[in-house]
Order: sequence, then structure tokens, then C-alpha cells
Amino acid sequence: MTLLVVGSTAFDTIETPHGTATDCLGGSSTYFSLAARLFTQVRLVSVVGTDFPPQHRRMLEERGIDLGGVETKTGRTFRWHGRYSTDMNARETLDVQLNTFGDFRPVVPPEFRATQFVFLANGAPATQRSVLEQLDAPRFCVADTMDLWIERDRDGLLELLRRIDGLIVNDAEVKQLTGRLNLIQAGRACLQLGPKLVIVKKGEHGCFVFSNFFHYALPAYPTEQVLDPTGAGDSFAGGFMGYLATCDTITLWNMKRAVAYGTVTASLTVEGFGVDRIANADRAAVERRYHELQQFVAGA
Amino acid sequence: MTLLVVGSTAFDTIETPHGTATDCLGGSSTYFSLAARLFTQVRLVSVVGTDFPPQHRRMLEERGIDLGGVETKTGRTFRWHGRYSTDMNARETLDVQLNTFGDFRPVVPPEFRATQFVFLANGAPATQRSVLEQLDAPRFCVADTMDLWIERDRDGLLELLRRIDGLIVNDAEVKQLTGRLNLIQAGRACLQLGPKLVIVKKGEHGCFVFSNFFHYALPAYPTEQVLDPTGAGDSFAGGFMGYLATCDTITLWNMKRAVAYGTVTASLTVEGFGVDRIANADRAAVERRYHELQQFVAGA
Repeated sequence: MTLLVVGSTAFDTIETPHGTATDCLGGSSTYFSLAARLFTQVRLVSVVGTDFPPQHRRMLEERGIDLGGVETKTGRTFRWHGRYSTDMNARETLDVQLNTFGDFRPVVPPEFRATQFVFLANGAPATQRSVLEQLDAPRFCVADTMDLWIERDRDGLLELLRRIDGLIVNDAEVKQLTGRLNLIQAGRACLQLGPKLVIVKKGEHGCFVFSNFFHYALPAYPTEQVLDPTGAGDSFAGGFMGYLATCDTITLWNMKRAVAYGTVTASLTVEGFGVDRIANADRAAVERRYHELQQFVAGA
Repeated sequence: MTLLVVGSTAFDTIETPHGTATDCLGGSSTYFSLAARLFTQVRLVSVVGTDFPPQHRRMLEERGIDLGGVETKTGRTFRWHGRYSTDMNARETLDVQLNTFGDFRPVVPPEFRATQFVFLANGAPATQRSVLEQLDAPRFCVADTMDLWIERDRDGLLELLRRIDGLIVNDAEVKQLTGRLNLIQAGRACLQLGPKLVIVKKGEHGCFVFSNFFHYALPAYPTEQVLDPTGAGDSFAGGFMGYLATCDTITLWNMKRAVAYGTVTASLTVEGFGVDRIANADRAAVERRYHELQQFVAGA
């Protein structure tokens, strides 16, 4: 099954205690695609400026990512500049230049419209909904969001939540969205807003999965080499959706496996600056970590 | 197998967003004992003041806890007063009166000296070591510690670490102790200091277990009813040591099960104020939660 992702492409300047990377390839849809392509064929809808170099395009295409939905607009590509704290559990945004991403109106090419698995990366809820309206009848549609939209466009977000199958958010966001301070209560309350599946990311502490039929917790892969946390969340989503798109049925067991694959792709991403590590990973590396993760969490 | 615990008995005044409890029974050895007695017979070494009422003594004895090592000294029992933040992930100490606990010199009664499983609750490293010197040849000895001792008596603590089998600490403490910011690195570095087993508690995020032969992660039991987090760590240690003391051999599998039992007893404690919930729990409630926890974390 192919997989459609709609989101940003960016140049990131990243400062961590381990060093600085300037104008490296980033953006939610980029991290997502590079993780998901390890499992299935990915169709990308995004926007870049005229400064987006052919070698980036080639790198993505060589990895089987279909750039048929990537629009090139006059101007510069979206730029982000951030700095991580010493323990890398907090970050500060030093500069954002939306540039061509500022008025992103995603257009899903006709040949992409029948895609069955869809990921709406973080963006304005209205933009995310506009993508849904261009699709035929997706089988499984998952969205990401952020504090900004919960704060500024709660109604638009609630409307989106009634129309998607799954939501991937972090712990602070699901508390903010539901007004519950207890994370288990927050996850359950979020299910009442529409999605059949709510995945709550907790960074180095792993994730919780909520559905009406089961709750599930998975610790993060125990990496000792976090170089740059940028893109971890989108890489998680990419591994999760990428694996799920290869499954015949969306069962409890397949979802649990997909969460573990997402955990693995996120762990690869954070071990390099920008997309370096995930772009150069192969399925064998993913499988090795998948089994290590299973051992790490195997009960008695 | 019986189990010896050496630590504080206290009267706690606890303020949480859910209410206030004044002068309720607390202390590390109390929480530990009330969790551990659900599995095995517990021998308690502690100190109280002449204000310690007979009904508390009776309550502990009715639960099979041997108070043969509890000294009553002229003066008042240790008192602690604390307040939790709105989300209960932080707390502030408003008042501490060490009283009779101030110069606690634990004396292990002769009939306790051959105990095979020993837990040294948080205390001055020299005090903890003085207990070891009174014991015949314990089979498995585990200690807790805190930031205060890491800061003020690092050498004394390092000496203790070379003489015990296991250490139970929280995430901030193991980072402080080892100087590593990555928790996996910190756990591994801590093993180099002596203990064969290091358990890192992460509160609502569960725990990590480090040994030279395996690493293991277990999420917390998904409770929605946290009323009062006081004593969660000691209740975890009590469930862990209590279960382990019932096992013929200290194997990887038994340790993993023991960690799950500790997770369960901690989850019971936090659902009541003070010791209310754990003191009134029975083994059936523990087993029910143990199986719920196994389901919550069961992989695919």
C-alpha cells in the first residue's frame, strides 16, 4: 500500500551540545518520508522555494519517494533555527522564516487521490482539512498538531479530529487539548473527540497508545547517542504509518508492531544531525533495532 | 524468606491538589514494609518518639510486620510537611523536624541478623553501612539514596555502593551520581560503581533496570487516580524486594517480575493519602493489577 504525507520541507539550523548544523534538510514531511520509505512507497505533497537544490530532490527520489506533489514556488524554502538545552529535553526557537511555506495550499495530484494511508503533518487545521477534501476515500488517516493550533484554532482542530482515524501528539499537547493533567485521563478524553486511535509521544520516555479497545505503553529504544532530537516525532510517525501501510489489516497487533517500528525509526533519526542517520539507514538496521527493542521491554 | 528493612518512620503532613492530610503515618520504612508484607514476612528496624500511638503499632503488627527492631526514644517522631504541584510531578518541603530520627543509630536485633534480603532505605551512607556491619551474610542487599548524600557524602556513598548488590535511585539522582546526562549511559556508569543491579525510577514514566547481563524498561501502571505520590518510591522498593524474597533464585526473570510487582505496589500507594491504600490492599488486588500491567505493556 502506498502512503501519502502532506507537510513542510525546510532548511534547519540546529544547535545542540554536540555541535551545530547549518541549513540542513529538514521539515516534517521530509523526516516522515525518510522513515516511511523504509517500509513502503511514499507520496509527498509539500512546497519548496527556488533555492531548493537538485541534490536534495535526487536523494529523496533515490529512496523511492514520489515527489509528484512537491510544488516549487518563487522565493525561499521554509527556514528554522533552534537550539537545544544541555540535556536536550528542551529547545528554543531562535528564528523562523516561513517563506514559501507561509501560504501553503497543498494540492494533491490526481494520481495521489486514491491513496489509502495518509499522514497530515503538523499544520493549520484548515490546511489539513483541505487535504482530506481532495482525497477519494482514505482507509486510515492520521494527523499531527501542535500547541499553537490548540491555542489559536481549537474549533478548527476539533472539526479535524472528528474526521480522522488517528492523532499523534506529545504529552503536553494532549493535556492542553483535553484539560486533563493525568496523562491516562487525557488520552482517554482525547478519544472522545473523534479519533479511534491516539498516540501520545513522551520523548525519551516512549509513548502511550489509546484506543477504545486497548491501552498500550512502549518505552523508547535505549539509545546512548542522542546527537540531535529534531524530527524524532515525524520519524516516529513515518515508521508507524509506513509499517501499518504494509499490513493487510489494521489490528491491535499490527498497531503495536507499528508503534515499535516508529520507536525504532525515531531512535535512528536522533543519532545523527538532521536527516543524516535516517536517510542512510536500511531495513536491516531497522529490524535489528526492532528486535533489540523487543528484548529491552520483554516482560517476565 | 524474611526481609529486613532499615529506615525512617514519620508523621507526614501532605498537601496535594486533592486535599490535605495532617500527621498521617509515613516514613520510608513504613511504606516499604506495608508493600513488602503483601509478599513475605518483614522485619523492621526504625525509631519513633514517645508520641507514636499504639494503634499504628498494632496496624503494622496485624499485617505481619515484626517491630522487634523499632526503638522508642524520648521525644517526638520524625515529622515532614510537603506540598505537591498542580500536576503532582514536583513537590516542595515546607518543614522537616528530624526529632528522634536525627541521631538514628540503627541496632539490628540478634534475631534479625541472619536475614537474607535487606533494604537500606534512604539515610546517611555511614548509617547504611553500619547496618551491613551488623548482619551475618545477607544474600541480596539493596539501598536507596538521595541528592543530599550524593552532594554531601559522595565518598561515603561510593564506599556503600561497593558493598551492596543493588541500588534504587531516581533519574535525576543517577545523573547526578555519574555525571552523565543520557539516562542509559548514567545507568551503565552506575554499574561500574559496584552494584550488580541498578533500578532507575522515573515516576509516572516507569523505570529502567540495568545489570551487566540485561537492560529492561517497564512503564508505570496506568493509574488515573493519583491522590498523593508520597511513598511511591519506597512502596516500589517494598514490592520489588518483597516478591524477590519469595523466589528461590535471583534470576533475570524473577527480577523482571519483581520490578512489575514493585510497579504495582507503588501504583496502589499513590491512589490514597499516606499509607491508606497500600495498608488496606491485599494480595488479590496486587495480582489483578499485575496482570493488567502485563497486558498494558504486552508487545506484538
